[in-house]
Amino acid sequence: MSRVVIIGNESAGYTAASTARAMDRKADIIVIERRPYALYHPCGIPFAIGGEIPDIKVLIEDVKQPNIDLRLGTEAKSIDSSAKTVEARELRSGKTEKIPYDSLIIASGSLAFRPPIEGADLNGVHMVKTIEDGEAIIKATRKAKRAVVVGGGAIGVETSAALKRRGLDVLLVEMMPHLLPSMLDQDMAELVDQRLKREGVRVLCSKQLREIRGDKDIRSVVVGEEECPADLVIMAVGVKPEVGLAKEAGIKLGPTGGIKVDRHLQTSAPHIFAAGDCAETKNYITGEPMLSQLATTAIRMGKVAGKNAVGGKATFDGTCNTIVTSARELIIASTGLTSRAAKNAGIDVISARVRMPNKPPDYPGAGSIYVKLLAEGKGHKIVGGQIISTEGVAERVDLLALAIQKGMRVEELADIEHGYMPAVCPPLEPLTVAAEALIRKL
Amino acid sequence: MSRVVIIGNESAGYTAASTARAMDRKADIIVIERRPYALYHPCGIPFAIGGEIPDIKVLIEDVKQPNIDLRLGTEAKSIDSSAKTVEARELRSGKTEKIPYDSLIIASGSLAFRPPIEGADLNGVHMVKTIEDGEAIIKATRKAKRAVVVGGGAIGVETSAALKRRGLDVLLVEMMPHLLPSMLDQDMAELVDQRLKREGVRVLCSKQLREIRGDKDIRSVVVGEEECPADLVIMAVGVKPEVGLAKEAGIKLGPTGGIKVDRHLQTSAPHIFAAGDCAETKNYITGEPMLSQLATTAIRMGKVAGKNAVGGKATFDGTCNTIVTSARELIIASTGLTSRAAKNAGIDVISARVRMPNKPPDYPGAGSIYVKLLAEGKGHKIVGGQIISTEGVAERVDLLALAIQKGMRVEELADIEHGYMPAVCPPLEPLTVAAEALIRKL
Repeated sequence: MSRVVIIGNESAGYTAASTARAMDRKADIIVIERRPYALYHPCGIPFAIGGEIPDIKVLIEDVKQPNIDLRLGTEAKSIDSSAKTVEARELRSGKTEKIPYDSLIIASGSLAFRPPIEGADLNGVHMVKTIEDGEAIIKATRKAKRAVVVGGGAIGVETSAALKRRGLDVLLVEMMPHLLPSMLDQDMAELVDQRLKREGVRVLCSKQLREIRGDKDIRSVVVGEEECPADLVIMAVGVKPEVGLAKEAGIKLGPTGGIKVDRHLQTSAPHIFAAGDCAETKNYITGEPMLSQLATTAIRMGKVAGKNAVGGKATFDGTCNTIVTSARELIIASTGLTSRAAKNAGIDVISARVRMPNKPPDYPGAGSIYVKLLAEGKGHKIVGGQIISTEGVAERVDLLALAIQKGMRVEELADIEHGYMPAVCPPLEPLTVAAEALIRKL
Repeated sequence: MSRVVIIGNESAGYTAASTARAMDRKADIIVIERRPYALYHPCGIPFAIGGEIPDIKVLIEDVKQPNIDLRLGTEAKSIDSSAKTVEARELRSGKTEKIPYDSLIIASGSLAFRPPIEGADLNGVHMVKTIEDGEAIIKATRKAKRAVVVGGGAIGVETSAALKRRGLDVLLVEMMPHLLPSMLDQDMAELVDQRLKREGVRVLCSKQLREIRGDKDIRSVVVGEEECPADLVIMAVGVKPEVGLAKEAGIKLGPTGGIKVDRHLQTSAPHIFAAGDCAETKNYITGEPMLSQLATTAIRMGKVAGKNAVGGKATFDGTCNTIVTSARELIIASTGLTSRAAKNAGIDVISARVRMPNKPPDYPGAGSIYVKLLAEGKGHKIVGGQIISTEGVAERVDLLALAIQKGMRVEELADIEHGYMPAVCPPLEPLTVAAEALIRKL
C-alpha cells in the first residue's frame, strides 16, 4: 500500500485527491488544509458582494470525500524530500507531526497580491480572495460611500459592478490602456468599458494607483496625478503562487515564479508533483511558461497530478486560459492569445470582429453578440477568440478552445455544424460568421 | 461570363446565391422563387403560434441580395438538362420563359407530408410549414378548444406546447414508443414527456392516428382504439423532399427519395447541383444516405453548391444532424446517433447519462442539466450526444458535433478546457462529467 499526501484542498488538491482515490482503491490519501472548512468557491465572491448570491456562506462547501483523510485546520510547515516526509502542524493544538509519503502533491494555491505602495496596509484596504475578504467587504459597504477598485482584470470588473450594485460610487483603475487586458483586445474591451460607465462606474485606464492616503482609515487615493476621495479600496491586481514550502525544500521554481513542473506535473524533486495556482504551466499555443491561476486549470491539473501520484502517466500540455467574466448582464469570455499576446510571442495574426443578432431579429429577448477571432496569418490556425453577449458566451468559447487545441484552421471553423432554434440562437452561427469574415481578410 | 440559375430561395438557395456572388463577382445569378416574398423562417412558426413571437409576419424577411436577380412569384416548370435551360412561369402574368444556365442549383425544399388517412382533407387539418399554415392555425385557435397534434418530433412538441399556451386542450400522438424518437433515447425523452404532461398536454406514444372524423369540420380523431373529440388537427409528421422537377428531368433520386448528389453536391446530370431539403445527404457517422431537412444543413449545403456552381471544388461530407428544440423553458438538443440509430447501423455503443447542476449550487437561477453521451464500445469514439436544460444547451451540443466530426475519443472529451463563471456555468463542465461517467463504463 502506498501513501499520497496532498497539501491544499482547493480546486487542484480536492480534484487530485478524488482522482487518486478513483484510480487506486487502496492508497492511503491524506490532505492537509489550513482552513477550518473543506472547500469554497472564490469565483463567487464578487457575486456575493453584489448581492446576486444573497449569503456568502453558500460559497463554503463543507464536503468530505469518502476514504480520504482530510485534515482541516492543519498547516504544512516543511517538506523533507530525502526523508519523504511533510511536517504538519495542527493549528488549534499546536501539535506537529511528520507524515511520511510515497507521493506528494503540492497544491498550495496562491495569495492575493498586495502592491507595495504607501497606505496599502490602512484599514479599508481589501483583497478579493477568501471568504473572510468577501465578508469584510460586504461589512464595509454598509458604511463606505466611495470605493476604488485597483485592477481591471476579471475580479476587478466583477467587483466594480458589484459595489455599484450596492450603491457605492466606484472608481476602477487599470494600469494598462484598457480593461481586461489579458483577455481582450482594445476594441472588445471598449464594450465592457461602456457598459460599466453606463452603470455609473468611473473607469480610468493607463493610470496607476500611486498612494493610499489616510490616518488609520482611508481618506483618498492618488491615481496618476489626481487625488480622489475614497473610503474603501479593493486590490484586485492578481495573485502570486504560494511557493514558500517548495522553495525551502529546494524544489525549483520557473521563470514565472511558480513551481516548475514537467508535462507529468512532476517537480524537480522525485515523487513530488505540483498542481493549480502554485504551479507553472505553459501556454498551449506559444509553449511559453505561464501562470494560469484559473479554477478550471487547477481542476485539470489536479486530475493529472492525482493520476500520476498513484503511478499513472497522464500529461498536461498547457492551457489556452479559457476564461469567462461578466459586467452586469454582459458575459465576456476569452480563449487563447489576444492580439497583444500574439505580438509579444512573435506570432503574426489576422483578426476579424463581427457583431450580429444573438437570436433571429424581432424575437423577444434578442440582442447582439460580438465575436472576435484571431488566426495565424500563415497556416490560418485559430489562436484566439473573444466573445461578448448576454448569453451563449461561455459555451461558445469552449468550442473555440477545443478548435485551438485541435489545431483547427479558420476554414474548418467556417464549416462547423450547429444546432438552431429561434428561442436560443440565430440561424447563422456567430462563430461561423466570424470565421467567414476572417477568411475574407486572409 | 457564366450564368448560375437557382431554383428556390429558402435557406439553401439563398445561401447558394450569396456564396456564388461572393466567389464570382461577374457571374450572372438568377434565383427563381414561387413565393411573393423573399425569405421566411419556418422554424419560428410554432413560437408564433404560441405567442412568444407576437406577430408571425416578423418571420418574413423580404431581403434582396445585391447583384442577384431574384424573381419572386415565379415557378420553375421544367428543366432541360441537354439544352441547359429552365422553363419558368411568372405566376401573375402566366408568362413563361426559357432561362439558359451554365450551372443550375436545385434548392426546391420540401413539402409537409399529409398522411393518407381518412379525413385528412377535412377543414381544420393543418400543417406547420408555411407562414400561411401558421396564420391559419393562429386563426383556428381563436375558436378551437381541442387540438390533436400528430407527430412527436421537434415541430410536434413545440406546437403542442404552443397550443397549450394558447389555452387549448392538447393531445399529442406519437407512433414510436417515445417523443422525439430521432433525437433522443427513451430515458431523455421521458423528461420531455413529463414536462409536457406537467403543462397539461396529454401525450400518447406507441399510438397511431387512424382516422379523422367529421363532416366538413372535425368532430373527433381515432387514435389506436380510442375516439377522442377534437376540432383542430395539426399534422407534424415530417416533410418530404420536393423532387418533382428533378425527377421529370431524369435526374436520379437516392434510396431516401431525395435527389442523389455526390460530395460536391453534383446530381447525376452535368452542371446541375442540389442542396437543402430536396437533396439526399449522408449521415456523417454511418455514411448511410439520409434526409437531413434542417435549416442549418440547408445553409451548409447551400454554401458548397454555391461555390461549386461557379467552379469551386468544395465538399459536403454529411451531417450529424445537430438539432435543437424546446418544450416550454426546457431546451433539448441532439447530435449524432441515438442508441436506436446506432443499433440499426450495427454500431456497438456504450452510453452514460449524468444529471448535474447547471450552475454552482445555491446560485440564483440554478437548475439541472442532463447530458447523455454515446461512444463506440471499441475505439471509444464519440458518436452521439443528447442534452436537456434551460440554458447552455445549443452551444454545448455544437461542441459535441465538432467532437464527433473530429473523431474525438471520449477520453479526449474528458480533458477539454472550459470557461467558468458562477453566474453562467458550473465549475465542472457537464460534458466533461458525462465523459468521465462514460469512461468508467468502458
